[in-house]
Amino acid sequence: MTQKEAIDYTINLAEKADENQIRPNPFVGAIIIDHEGQLIGEGYHQKIGGPHAEVNAIEQALEKTADLGQATMYVSLEPCSHFGKTPPCVDLIIQHKIKKVVIASLDPNPKVASVAKLIEHGIEVEVVDDVSATLLNARFFTNQLKNRPHYILKLASTIDGKIADHEKNSQWISSAASRQFVHDHLRANVDAIMTSYKTVIQDQASLTIRNTAGAIQETNVILIDRNLELLEKQYENLPIFYLRSVTKIIFITANPPSIQLPENMDYIIGTFNEQGLVFSSISEKLLELGYYKILTEAGSQLNSSMIQQNMADELYWFIAPAILNDLNGLPMLGLDAIRGLDKKVQLSLIETKLIDQDVLLHYRFN
Amino acid sequence: MTQKEAIDYTINLAEKADENQIRPNPFVGAIIIDHEGQLIGEGYHQKIGGPHAEVNAIEQALEKTADLGQATMYVSLEPCSHFGKTPPCVDLIIQHKIKKVVIASLDPNPKVASVAKLIEHGIEVEVVDDVSATLLNARFFTNQLKNRPHYILKLASTIDGKIADHEKNSQWISSAASRQFVHDHLRANVDAIMTSYKTVIQDQASLTIRNTAGAIQETNVILIDRNLELLEKQYENLPIFYLRSVTKIIFITANPPSIQLPENMDYIIGTFNEQGLVFSSISEKLLELGYYKILTEAGSQLNSSMIQQNMADELYWFIAPAILNDLNGLPMLGLDAIRGLDKKVQLSLIETKLIDQDVLLHYRFN
Repeated sequence: MTQKEAIDYTINLAEKADENQIRPNPFVGAIIIDHEGQLIGEGYHQKIGGPHAEVNAIEQALEKTADLGQATMYVSLEPCSHFGKTPPCVDLIIQHKIKKVVIASLDPNPKVASVAKLIEHGIEVEVVDDVSATLLNARFFTNQLKNRPHYILKLASTIDGKIADHEKNSQWISSAASRQFVHDHLRANVDAIMTSYKTVIQDQASLTIRNTAGAIQETNVILIDRNLELLEKQYENLPIFYLRSVTKIIFITANPPSIQLPENMDYIIGTFNEQGLVFSSISEKLLELGYYKILTEAGSQLNSSMIQQNMADELYWFIAPAILNDLNGLPMLGLDAIRGLDKKVQLSLIETKLIDQDVLLHYRFN
Repeated sequence: MTQKEAIDYTINLAEKADENQIRPNPFVGAIIIDHEGQLIGEGYHQKIGGPHAEVNAIEQALEKTADLGQATMYVSLEPCSHFGKTPPCVDLIIQHKIKKVVIASLDPNPKVASVAKLIEHGIEVEVVDDVSATLLNARFFTNQLKNRPHYILKLASTIDGKIADHEKNSQWISSAASRQFVHDHLRANVDAIMTSYKTVIQDQASLTIRNTAGAIQETNVILIDRNLELLEKQYENLPIFYLRSVTKIIFITANPPSIQLPENMDYIIGTFNEQGLVFSSISEKLLELGYYKILTEAGSQLNSSMIQQNMADELYWFIAPAILNDLNGLPMLGLDAIRGLDKKVQLSLIETKLIDQDVLLHYRFN
């Protein structure tokens, strides 16, 4: 196995985890190769509170040999060095005198300082800045580095960038298959869906997860509603207010509600200015409440504002094979703030996918 | 070889031709399979005035056997039945008593009636409506069915559909690699590039073909210029007016020029209304002059107007990995004419391609 193959192996292992079971932890995979090049142990992090990838890999290796002194460990992310829900992996590696550790990506958490500690204990360390290993934990890195949720924007437009016609009719721009993809792969893999009160009224959205068989699953919803219009103007019949048993609606508002909220609703006070919500004012609170990864399904204004504030991390853009050819249609993005071509926001393409006749482009923001 | 494999083989043969050598003729490939399933003859149409694919295939087969009475011919397009620059292929097929002819796409020209004639002469005929065979001759079909040039639109935009910022700065939206692709694969394969006088002034465009080594080749240009502003307002220093030796500039204008045009310029009188040029008024004349396939590289207005008038056949759309996020930027497409979502223009995706960090989506208009 070449080094690249070994790293890819750890990434594939890591990806076996269901992210909903591990958040806020990262995906991690680890393997151990003996001095003859044989794979003698592998593991991945499966569940928050459960053993780390390195522990699983070492335990499996120890069943084959008591001596790991000539073995190399490949791990997709820098091993932990601090006591969290489990003891530090770095101590276990030192204890078993593993010869060399190849790390595919460094942990951005300043509390993690495993490389130095391993070297201190005479263990050879090689750090590879592997792009796939970094992409794998995009959400984790955002949480750690920016101390805020990882925001994913979802847009569906015509070729000419319209998300609705002049009468705000948007049903449907994208194909049924694309809409199902949103349920299966986007809504099902986040802690909450974020939108604005306007979108909730306009689209009569319930924002549930509907599987292909039609079964419905609840989701948490973060609702930006500066003046709590949805609560105070008797919109209680909106589909978003279905009977929730395990999820919540979190209102982002400028002032506390004047009424007592039911149990499945809560609010966060945010700062608003002329452009709307200042996202940095709610970041820490959202993380604290466990919203590590948020999908935004909203109109042009909210999406554009998030991009303007550098609060967009990934974009899933569904392009329908159609042209509206009408300047009066609703544009996908755009603020009324002059910006020259030299100030454009740069993204990187992660993946393209054909879904029925739609094209899905998946980008990350640089 | 299955039927599908045989048809694909004829298409691959057909594609060997350089379209610049065959226009206005279609791409055609033909093979002959004997009763034992052996391929005994193949050919394609290589050059206007030269032998057709069927002739090449039959001649090759006759070198191996004098008797084609048990053989099957596969041909990507219905054989011709009329005297053009060469005698009708259908007569040659009948003369050699070929047992069966499988036709991958019918010739839309009403003068071509080969299927009936072959059957009349006891030859078995199977017509397959093969999508690839039809796509291969998109230009030919447009010319035949619509009696007008085949129009290809080229657009380069940001993700949010802007082709320039609020100051009309558009250099550069797309990558150097995408721009080179336009030279190598689009400009080099058409009879002329069409644009408006406004674009020529704004972009200071020369619209030549520049190969990767930097060598420059001339192109014909069709310039929509209702009032001949470019001629009458002393724009003679524009790059478009480089010294031409083999190409022409054709002005589309509402009235004849008041001055004598130099040899490498000509004009066509077109009908204009409030929206601009009425394309149907110049279609026949353009075909007559040998402009069978035209690439439009222009601003939003011309592109949108062509789409509105059903004068767009293919779209090459280069998407740069950037967002301008400014409503004041120039939109890729759009007329100020109300159009509901139910009236959107439908396209079909032909191909997606990654060019450096840009995504190229190639569509045809339905």
